[in-house]
Amino acid sequence: MKKISVGVIGATGMVGQNYIRLLNDHPWFEVTYVAASPRSAGKTYAQAVAGRWVMDGDIPESVRHLVVQDAAQVAAAKAHCAFVFSCVDMDKQAIRDLENQYAAADLPVVSNNSVHRQTADVPVLIPEINAEHLEIITAQRQKRGWQKGFIVVKPNCSIQSYMAPIHALRQAGYPVAKVFVTTLQAVSGAGYPGNASLDMIDNVIPFINGEEEKSEKEPLKVFGKIAAGELIDDNAIAISAHCNRVPVIDGHLACVSLAFAEKKPSLSQIRELWLAYRSVPQQLQLPFAPPHPIVYREENNRPQPRKDRDTENAMSVTVGRLRPCNLFDCRFVGLSHNTVRGAAGGGILNAELLKAKGYI
Amino acid sequence: MKKISVGVIGATGMVGQNYIRLLNDHPWFEVTYVAASPRSAGKTYAQAVAGRWVMDGDIPESVRHLVVQDAAQVAAAKAHCAFVFSCVDMDKQAIRDLENQYAAADLPVVSNNSVHRQTADVPVLIPEINAEHLEIITAQRQKRGWQKGFIVVKPNCSIQSYMAPIHALRQAGYPVAKVFVTTLQAVSGAGYPGNASLDMIDNVIPFINGEEEKSEKEPLKVFGKIAAGELIDDNAIAISAHCNRVPVIDGHLACVSLAFAEKKPSLSQIRELWLAYRSVPQQLQLPFAPPHPIVYREENNRPQPRKDRDTENAMSVTVGRLRPCNLFDCRFVGLSHNTVRGAAGGGILNAELLKAKGYI
Amino acid sequence: MKKISVGVIGATGMVGQNYIRLLNDHPWFEVTYVAASPRSAGKTYAQAVAGRWVMDGDIPESVRHLVVQDAAQVAAAKAHCAFVFSCVDMDKQAIRDLENQYAAADLPVVSNNSVHRQTADVPVLIPEINAEHLEIITAQRQKRGWQKGFIVVKPNCSIQSYMAPIHALRQAGYPVAKVFVTTLQAVSGAGYPGNASLDMIDNVIPFINGEEEKSEKEPLKVFGKIAAGELIDDNAIAISAHCNRVPVIDGHLACVSLAFAEKKPSLSQIRELWLAYRSVPQQLQLPFAPPHPIVYREENNRPQPRKDRDTENAMSVTVGRLRPCNLFDCRFVGLSHNTVRGAAGGGILNAELLKAKGYI
Amino acid sequence: MKKISVGVIGATGMVGQNYIRLLNDHPWFEVTYVAASPRSAGKTYAQAVAGRWVMDGDIPESVRHLVVQDAAQVAAAKAHCAFVFSCVDMDKQAIRDLENQYAAADLPVVSNNSVHRQTADVPVLIPEINAEHLEIITAQRQKRGWQKGFIVVKPNCSIQSYMAPIHALRQAGYPVAKVFVTTLQAVSGAGYPGNASLDMIDNVIPFINGEEEKSEKEPLKVFGKIAAGELIDDNAIAISAHCNRVPVIDGHLACVSLAFAEKKPSLSQIRELWLAYRSVPQQLQLPFAPPHPIVYREENNRPQPRKDRDTENAMSVTVGRLRPCNLFDCRFVGLSHNTVRGAAGGGILNAELLKAKGYI
Repeated sequence: MKKISVGVIGATGMVGQNYIRLLNDHPWFEVTYVAASPRSAGKTYAQAVAGRWVMDGDIPESVRHLVVQDAAQVAAAKAHCAFVFSCVDMDKQAIRDLENQYAAADLPVVSNNSVHRQTADVPVLIPEINAEHLEIITAQRQKRGWQKGFIVVKPNCSIQSYMAPIHALRQAGYPVAKVFVTTLQAVSGAGYPGNASLDMIDNVIPFINGEEEKSEKEPLKVFGKIAAGELIDDNAIAISAHCNRVPVIDGHLACVSLAFAEKKPSLSQIRELWLAYRSVPQQLQLPFAPPHPIVYREENNRPQPRKDRDTENAMSVTVGRLRPCNLFDCRFVGLSHNTVRGAAGGGILNAELLKAKGYI
Repeated sequence: MKKISVGVIGATGMVGQNYIRLLNDHPWFEVTYVAASPRSAGKTYAQAVAGRWVMDGDIPESVRHLVVQDAAQVAAAKAHCAFVFSCVDMDKQAIRDLENQYAAADLPVVSNNSVHRQTADVPVLIPEINAEHLEIITAQRQKRGWQKGFIVVKPNCSIQSYMAPIHALRQAGYPVAKVFVTTLQAVSGAGYPGNASLDMIDNVIPFINGEEEKSEKEPLKVFGKIAAGELIDDNAIAISAHCNRVPVIDGHLACVSLAFAEKKPSLSQIRELWLAYRSVPQQLQLPFAPPHPIVYREENNRPQPRKDRDTENAMSVTVGRLRPCNLFDCRFVGLSHNTVRGAAGGGILNAELLKAKGYI
Repeated sequence: MKKISVGVIGATGMVGQNYIRLLNDHPWFEVTYVAASPRSAGKTYAQAVAGRWVMDGDIPESVRHLVVQDAAQVAAAKAHCAFVFSCVDMDKQAIRDLENQYAAADLPVVSNNSVHRQTADVPVLIPEINAEHLEIITAQRQKRGWQKGFIVVKPNCSIQSYMAPIHALRQAGYPVAKVFVTTLQAVSGAGYPGNASLDMIDNVIPFINGEEEKSEKEPLKVFGKIAAGELIDDNAIAISAHCNRVPVIDGHLACVSLAFAEKKPSLSQIRELWLAYRSVPQQLQLPFAPPHPIVYREENNRPQPRKDRDTENAMSVTVGRLRPCNLFDCRFVGLSHNTVRGAAGGGILNAELLKAKGYI
Repeated sequence: MKKISVGVIGATGMVGQNYIRLLNDHPWFEVTYVAASPRSAGKTYAQAVAGRWVMDGDIPESVRHLVVQDAAQVAAAKAHCAFVFSCVDMDKQAIRDLENQYAAADLPVVSNNSVHRQTADVPVLIPEINAEHLEIITAQRQKRGWQKGFIVVKPNCSIQSYMAPIHALRQAGYPVAKVFVTTLQAVSGAGYPGNASLDMIDNVIPFINGEEEKSEKEPLKVFGKIAAGELIDDNAIAISAHCNRVPVIDGHLACVSLAFAEKKPSLSQIRELWLAYRSVPQQLQLPFAPPHPIVYREENNRPQPRKDRDTENAMSVTVGRLRPCNLFDCRFVGLSHNTVRGAAGGGILNAELLKAKGYI
């Protein structure tokens, strides 16, 4: 099979680098186009990220020598790739405009940015949870007059540590009404350079700008429904999130308490539902789909970021410590890899779903 | 004023070392007696802790040359001190027996251990909150046939990061009904050697053995009432605690959400109540009493362990980020120094209160 | 090809666990026997390491259910495997006796321990450097009356970060006379639990017991010659080593200055010699041989432990910062993965060499 | 005694903040003037550093409300203070020009910057070592036509961990000919934000830009002599320095090997010389002078940054592990607090010496 040519817009940043790293040897996709700010344009990719390549391992050979293009030159991208991953770092309005331009130019945009997460006709995709939200693409194109282009986004990285576990219970007939969550988030979530080491050695920071708001709002859309060409939040679930930055490289950990709306599963039912949980990406055997979207660890001190973040190529959610809650019905600890499942890896899975469903 | 002679039972461990350090130059108390396991007995204190002194600074000169005694020799202690701080590290029943023996031998025991925290006639003391619980000492002595001896204990270190803030609201007429708390606790809380560095570099551990149970139970007793010679839990408050170990040397941080039972103070009322909060130790001007038991930081990313743990000689609780909660009435972040306020410093404040109230 | 059955003696410790992890799916070897202390004997391997498995990923399925044997039961091992990896944790004389017993029982011993490193007829093997030292096995067997058994050991983990770079120069005709080295060593080198997190957060320890002595002595034997059935140290090289423990999980970094004995290569010659360096394991295409035993990084701030330790499956030495020295002829920074190249991975490469050379 | 009014030029940066912190309640000096970039000018100091105050504790009350001035307005400074501490962060030529302007305006400049360290008539001062270099101020003023103004600087922070120990031997008649040093330096040395936490968790960086060059050159001037109105390097000593960044907040550690030029003291002589070492600041009883400029620790694993950096108010050098060197005559480990002794505290001690000697 001839691989599909893809572009990475914002390729020199940390998320962009992760796309480059993870797409190396991808069975379906091939990076043929990299774009970034005018400052990097004209350099080879290796030159553009010299001294700033923060991934493990080296820059893949196939990308080293690609010449970085100006992200604003949408027409150039059109000539070199079939769709783009967007992870540009600009002000919000500029990102919104740029992504719209790519879509208008017939280039599907699989975005990592937060700007379109509250746009009513843009799906916030977690393929295991709401693959059916892709249906809104038709309305999105229609409304905006786009032919082949469209925009899909992924949610904030930190909610991924508990969304699949909650969804597994919802779809089994146990809707969750209330969620208390406190996150312990890795520094890679802040990009590079991100948090200063002076702030993170022998310390934690109990604040991440905008993170609590996103964590309380985005899940409602992910769990929502399409109605009249718009995504309607599921307001039957309410979330309270405390977000902390901790001195961990990768892996967002979440301490979660759940109250069910009506029927309450037993703890053993919950574990069984998690263990048995498979969804669309597994059925479609998407290359980046983890065989077990939820992995349960029996040890009483797991999951732990360094030990569990790479489970199933860093695409699974690892959970543990399921136990009764003194105030709600149950509580547990969840973990996912924020720069893989929560960023570039999640974006790639989104693109794989789009390909499998015929959108790209 | 002639200083009161005090003994430290369990003087070679980490909490014991902290007592030795903090009691250096104490205006009321003077360490004249140190005891530990038979293994250390007979050595000078300096010899006994050689290679294991983990405090900043050196061993105080006045203690270096004290000969460590066998903690089991209660009579020996009686001859050298007026009361003891107990922080022995033995199995629970052995600690219980030993503390009882000291008390029976007319030596008041100010304990750091958890064994007596659920004993009905032993007060779990936070001087700012429940100084009046000392009245149970009369019943305790009577019941056990002790003359001058008695036992008071302090609660688990991690709850100190939010107990005073909750109490300030309770006593102002805003009883709290529900508390969700997630702690990020320092490694010093596990003693020495405690957590392996292999577990704490680039990692957090979402589990501390027994900590969640203590955190959900002890506050009820601290907030409780004396009735018929026993301390009766306040069951009108319910707590759910998730406890995590993080790579921080000192300082337990707590993310807290509160639901009030009836009347709900506004956020600005809460802040004012915290700022104005003073209690018995401040009124009595106890040497270790922090001038401001609750310090509020306005910055949106505080308190932080390394930056705030030493506030007012590490005896204050620092709070910040007071804001509405999406599920309960409000939420905030609290921090206290676990080995000072939460351990040896808290024990010393307990002893100061006992002295001021005439019990020792 | 039928795989060779191997035993791991000391299988439950950290090095033993790494052997189990690295030997999973090895093309030549298969773990069929695991032994440890009597305390673990009789349990399945999974039971024996429950709560103590510190490797990334899970216990390989093929080993989980093996019943752990008592390491002292040498005859039992003989029935189940063709040779053993030894990484027991006992006192030195006990290790020496035990390894001798295995060898006497016709079981070749590939040891990770230090006890035999100064034994005159036991080779200290780094396959890239002194593969020809295997010839002493004949003398070793003869002297001790062993038939098929023998003992080979590997050197201290920290010297591996600079031995190959020095050897590459020696064999090109540039003998090195003096080496100043200061190491920054990872905590995994101390085993589990090893260094307390209280000692390693916001801290370094400028001391590792016995490490400097080993670092100054073992290289002389590795670079030595066989004469009259004994390994004779190369005393033409002198080394001064300062060894430090730093808060890094894996990867020993070494700052090295070299003075040449006679001819001095230019910096560019040194780099070329390093880049071109291949040796016996590469020629024999041993499964664990890194394609490039020495990898040179051009960036001025590399190698770094977290970014470079996994180079070529953690079996390469990464070097960088080659520059003139203000006192000696040149200086550079070297890095190797201490628990892979420096321990279990190095042991496996030793065994592969032994197999390729017909000794097992 | 009326306190001397002092200005801090570059007051909002990390070194400037440390001056503000350390000068609080200084017996001789009082901060009456703070200046920074035009961006901060016009704000109160508290406003200017809002969110950037990285010191422990809060901004001193006496400085909170000072209005920050534009550092370029030299005349304004003249009206408010008797001398200035300079720690501006600008390009080198701009710093040089600015410091010259302050000196020309009759304001002595006690500088923390590196720009004048190689200027022949500017002393690089460590009061314990080369207080007599102040005599060059006369020549400096003469040459430049300055009346009351002058410039003195302090050396690079990392060399302070071994300069005093070397000087103690030199002045006792044991000149040192060769020094091998490898440093493990704290992140605070890079200022704020400095090193990214992504680079410093589970990692070390074997490179600090320009640090090795400074470390090999500045000591020669500190140990030098005045001749014909210039400071002449002592070229009888040669140094090789490897500099590393490690995940430590404060405290630069140095592993040092020494070769003596002629006479070689025994290890016990060295220890005695260090223990007995006192110098000008101690004789003059300068407020910031540590009673013991060199503190020797007998434990084999000290000094350690977190445990020893605060020795004698963070102004002493702590040494340990004195032992023979396999290549040179002896080796040891040294430690000093880089942001106190090595920066603001060292600057204050310089100013105290200048005051005591009548220069300000």
